[in-house]
Amino acid sequence: MPELRKDYVTDTWVVFSAARAQRPGAFRGGKSTTDPEKCPFCYGHEHRTPPEVLAYRKDGVPDGPGWWIRCVPNKYPALQVEGEVQRRVSQLFHSVNGVGAHEIIVETPEHEHHLSMQSEFQVQEIITAYKQRYLDLIRDKRFKYILIFKNHGERAGASISHPHSQLIATPIVPRRIMEEVNALNRFYESTGGSCLYCEIVETELEEEKRIVTENESFVCLSPYAARFPFETWILPKAHEMAFEDIADDERTPFARILKDTLGRMFGILDDPPFNYYIHTAPCDRKETKYHWHLEITPRLTETAGFERGTGFYINPVMPEDAAAILRERVKLSDKPS
Amino acid sequence: MPELRKDYVTDTWVVFSAARAQRPGAFRGGKSTTDPEKCPFCYGHEHRTPPEVLAYRKDGVPDGPGWWIRCVPNKYPALQVEGEVQRRVSQLFHSVNGVGAHEIIVETPEHEHHLSMQSEFQVQEIITAYKQRYLDLIRDKRFKYILIFKNHGERAGASISHPHSQLIATPIVPRRIMEEVNALNRFYESTGGSCLYCEIVETELEEEKRIVTENESFVCLSPYAARFPFETWILPKAHEMAFEDIADDERTPFARILKDTLGRMFGILDDPPFNYYIHTAPCDRKETKYHWHLEITPRLTETAGFERGTGFYINPVMPEDAAAILRERVKLSDKPS
Repeated sequence: MPELRKDYVTDTWVVFSAARAQRPGAFRGGKSTTDPEKCPFCYGHEHRTPPEVLAYRKDGVPDGPGWWIRCVPNKYPALQVEGEVQRRVSQLFHSVNGVGAHEIIVETPEHEHHLSMQSEFQVQEIITAYKQRYLDLIRDKRFKYILIFKNHGERAGASISHPHSQLIATPIVPRRIMEEVNALNRFYESTGGSCLYCEIVETELEEEKRIVTENESFVCLSPYAARFPFETWILPKAHEMAFEDIADDERTPFARILKDTLGRMFGILDDPPFNYYIHTAPCDRKETKYHWHLEITPRLTETAGFERGTGFYINPVMPEDAAAILRERVKLSDKPS
Repeated sequence: MPELRKDYVTDTWVVFSAARAQRPGAFRGGKSTTDPEKCPFCYGHEHRTPPEVLAYRKDGVPDGPGWWIRCVPNKYPALQVEGEVQRRVSQLFHSVNGVGAHEIIVETPEHEHHLSMQSEFQVQEIITAYKQRYLDLIRDKRFKYILIFKNHGERAGASISHPHSQLIATPIVPRRIMEEVNALNRFYESTGGSCLYCEIVETELEEEKRIVTENESFVCLSPYAARFPFETWILPKAHEMAFEDIADDERTPFARILKDTLGRMFGILDDPPFNYYIHTAPCDRKETKYHWHLEITPRLTETAGFERGTGFYINPVMPEDAAAILRERVKLSDKPS
């Protein structure tokens, strides 16, 4: 059984999972799986994954080919789906046993197909699968938070190159989410009822210089204090607490802006490794103020001792420059300095 | 002038520094400098760095050869030493101008000489240089925190392979330090005057299983919630608030345990990339409870979307196993599972 442990001093939690040590590419220098013959996510290899929990297919049988989206439990899960959540506190040692869910959303049967090159329909189907798996798992009261995320490229932590996203449900609400929730609650109280993310959207649309692109429902911007070069956020313009409430007619504009943004990065930054993740409200929505969004962080620089020791980040690219480059689709090297 | 910006929502600060974009290896794929002919830290190349601020040499002139330790300003500084600290808050935008110091401590004239292979005398001299630069900079009231750190290996963010450490002085106290200070203050209050780090040292020495090594003054342990495989901390056994107060007769045992620990990692993990950093009290020590220590974090795994999205870490190696392996100097692959 995996185990979550809290640092003696700070609210940092660590998931200890022996299963993760077994997967290919667990340690640096280990190779990620790029050969289609060995790929567990290609047609005809469905038996190489645990049995599917969801698939979109017209014909055919479960765990056979014919699907265009397929969701399966992770073969090397960070957390384990069986068991009850038990907290232990003894002296300095706080732990929670590693109950949770860890799933894979295979985004396409095509072994090499960058998300930005998928059809708009396919990206919408990926979003629908995210939502459907989320709504299934949120019914499990053991789970306090569900994170949907994607790792693209070996240096962004992807151990398999075939396009896929992941979902991890955790038995505690992560600190980054709690920090946001607490800040949003404080802002709500101090302003008599305003949403901090609504304020960000409005202010940034007025300021213009950090906006990458927008459509009728979403805005894509380079945040004022971007931690990483070309970090960008996609936010709904209207106040929407949770991703899983996304309306059917919002999936098209969300798919369009996600595909567009990743396409700009692909072209300008030459297919950079990146992570994205969806920040939504905690599972227990009682009295929670939130405004969901998606954060994309390309991996163009290394963090080092200064960042680890302080919690600061060093970013050599101003977000206003990053936004201009992404907006105008100019190569970094073409930009007059 | 560099600029520090605070995230709209959380207490995350980012240093924007255009100078950092100019250095070799600023972006991934850029190569680090390993050729001794091009190395700015080798004998005879002293003019390739800014003028030295400290050097240990018997004979010879400043900025000439003959030194065994040499400290210089960083040529590509994250923060700039001239100017006054100015805070700006306007709507959602909080910034501080990038006043600070960024220095290099060249640890040896030898181009390839891992810290664990230096003589005990030389490691002591490195520690003395750390202290001396610290004590010089703390007199500058613009600086609120001074971090001493080391990046070893390209994948740990080192852009030059010649052994060196760094020092960055910042105009605000970093969030990681504030989190520790706040937790230590709470523990002090709730226990009527105990130090949380003293408690950690005592408890871990009793439990034994996470101890790597110890000597008369220091203990080296694998922390209970190690974020990274083989993360280890070195702490003074006695309650000592600040690194810069280290007594002359403590430098020898500190040098010995640091050299020993890095030597174990070098042998067992095959010269892994790593970062280490010294956590000491903020410059303004008023009413601060602290207990200095050094944290070593090897870079054996990649963090990915889950870590970035949540602030959790995933560690495939239990600290008890890491401590046993380091203690017994067995190779990971030789360990019975």
